[in-house]
Amino acid sequence: MEERERYDVIIVGAGMAGISAALTLKLHELKILWLGTPQLSEKIQKAEKIKNYPGVAAVSGASFAALLRAQAAEVGLTVTPETATGVYATGNGFSVLTEKNAFESRSVILATGVESVKSVEGEEEFLGRGVSYCATCDGFLYKGKTIAVVCTSKEKEGEAAYLASLAAKVYFVPLYKSPSLSAPNVEYVGGMPLKIEGSKRVEKLIFKERELAVDGIFFLKSAAPPAVLVGGLAVEGGHVAVSRDMRTNIRGLFAAGDCTGRPYQYAKAAGEGNVAAHSAVEYLRSLHEGDKQGKNADL
Amino acid sequence: MEERERYDVIIVGAGMAGISAALTLKLHELKILWLGTPQLSEKIQKAEKIKNYPGVAAVSGASFAALLRAQAAEVGLTVTPETATGVYATGNGFSVLTEKNAFESRSVILATGVESVKSVEGEEEFLGRGVSYCATCDGFLYKGKTIAVVCTSKEKEGEAAYLASLAAKVYFVPLYKSPSLSAPNVEYVGGMPLKIEGSKRVEKLIFKERELAVDGIFFLKSAAPPAVLVGGLAVEGGHVAVSRDMRTNIRGLFAAGDCTGRPYQYAKAAGEGNVAAHSAVEYLRSLHEGDKQGKNADL
Repeated sequence: MEERERYDVIIVGAGMAGISAALTLKLHELKILWLGTPQLSEKIQKAEKIKNYPGVAAVSGASFAALLRAQAAEVGLTVTPETATGVYATGNGFSVLTEKNAFESRSVILATGVESVKSVEGEEEFLGRGVSYCATCDGFLYKGKTIAVVCTSKEKEGEAAYLASLAAKVYFVPLYKSPSLSAPNVEYVGGMPLKIEGSKRVEKLIFKERELAVDGIFFLKSAAPPAVLVGGLAVEGGHVAVSRDMRTNIRGLFAAGDCTGRPYQYAKAAGEGNVAAHSAVEYLRSLHEGDKQGKNADL
Repeated sequence: MEERERYDVIIVGAGMAGISAALTLKLHELKILWLGTPQLSEKIQKAEKIKNYPGVAAVSGASFAALLRAQAAEVGLTVTPETATGVYATGNGFSVLTEKNAFESRSVILATGVESVKSVEGEEEFLGRGVSYCATCDGFLYKGKTIAVVCTSKEKEGEAAYLASLAAKVYFVPLYKSPSLSAPNVEYVGGMPLKIEGSKRVEKLIFKERELAVDGIFFLKSAAPPAVLVGGLAVEGGHVAVSRDMRTNIRGLFAAGDCTGRPYQYAKAAGEGNVAAHSAVEYLRSLHEGDKQGKNADL
């Protein structure tokens, strides 16, 4: 079997919960990988004023993000700028896939935040049958075809452009201000998509006053819904179901921050990231104890 | 009936969870009372170095406390320097007793931290039968008697002195460095007390190599154990049992921070204080909705 580097913990997401988990894990001798946006989450960046975060008096989101980046850099933490597209329990840990790589880890902390844009009816139903969240993973399947690209963030326009370079025709549905994607085969469509229709696979994307006949639909979001990212993950009302110690229903998989539910607050996310890190450390210790007793030898 | 001022929320405790709850409640139009030590908890004060609190890079506890005090003052929050000695559900809200006052409130957030000193065997069993946590409440009962005073913090020496002014004889058991209580009727006793014995009431405080015959025992702690402070409160392993939204088993009573369990971390306490505040606001709103529908008219 191929010798791959193996992490103790992979943190998925670089918002408040992610950085809190990273700072706490950094106090331990662990091999960690931190996936996300090195600028830290858009949510922090764009906050107008943060008023109730203990220890940091009334600052703008941009200053707060700068403060957090400096703190992370100071202790030697770096964010690997890749987006997780899938987390798979391997029986022996986890494989975390990004657009470019597959990483192996003993445990995972999901800190993916919440997508402020609602899911479209049929989105989960047609996943893998014409619906995709990953341009670089699935784009080649739509070479010469007609697709819709629903994009929730300007940062994802590069992926949309990549799709436009492959597909014959792209219906582009930007859900943010001042989109700037431009190509001869790209047609802008305004409004929110309402529903996906099809029999075996995606056939149509339905808007209030229009129907688009398509072969596939890409949703380019900053984070895929947790249940889509991790097969078999228990969710409640769209949020990851967790215990008080931030364990999910999957052994070795923890979650923290907005993805676990309201209130969507920095302090709550920081607290949960901290707790998730402690639980991950405890979990790794339990594996190690197992090793010493000759059990779970391959964990 | 006497017209008493009535609060929407009383926060019991001025550590990390307390300040986080206070900052969040301050964003709402609510009448709040915040009980605790205006210098903020000793735990923050005395921390050597705080390394994993997001947003505040490697500072001493003293600087961190100063930062938090300034932030609280900036938004107009003040700590009322009284220690809660009892919280009672009145069917119609709560009465919170301190050494000096009785306060009324619609809801309560317990953020009392954890006492680092373990309970003594028999402490809860003999509560109200010779064991007390409150010098000013119960001191007069021991006028001319022999008592033991177990004191966990130098800040409580004033209360011990008060007890020495009433009792005939005081066995003083300081569980901290450099105690300075001095009076002719005070005898210092070293070591940790192991056990309380008695039939109907307290009769003896047992040490490894000594037994003290006493009429009463005062435990002067920065916080009484939660189950002692609040009758009927559900606890698990000495910690307040809470749901993910920081509700306790008592309607309108929330808890946050170290008193709810490990990890004893600033970020966790801040997160829980924030969540408890949101839950309290939601609870108050539900009472208000009840009012509007003509139900719960006296809530």
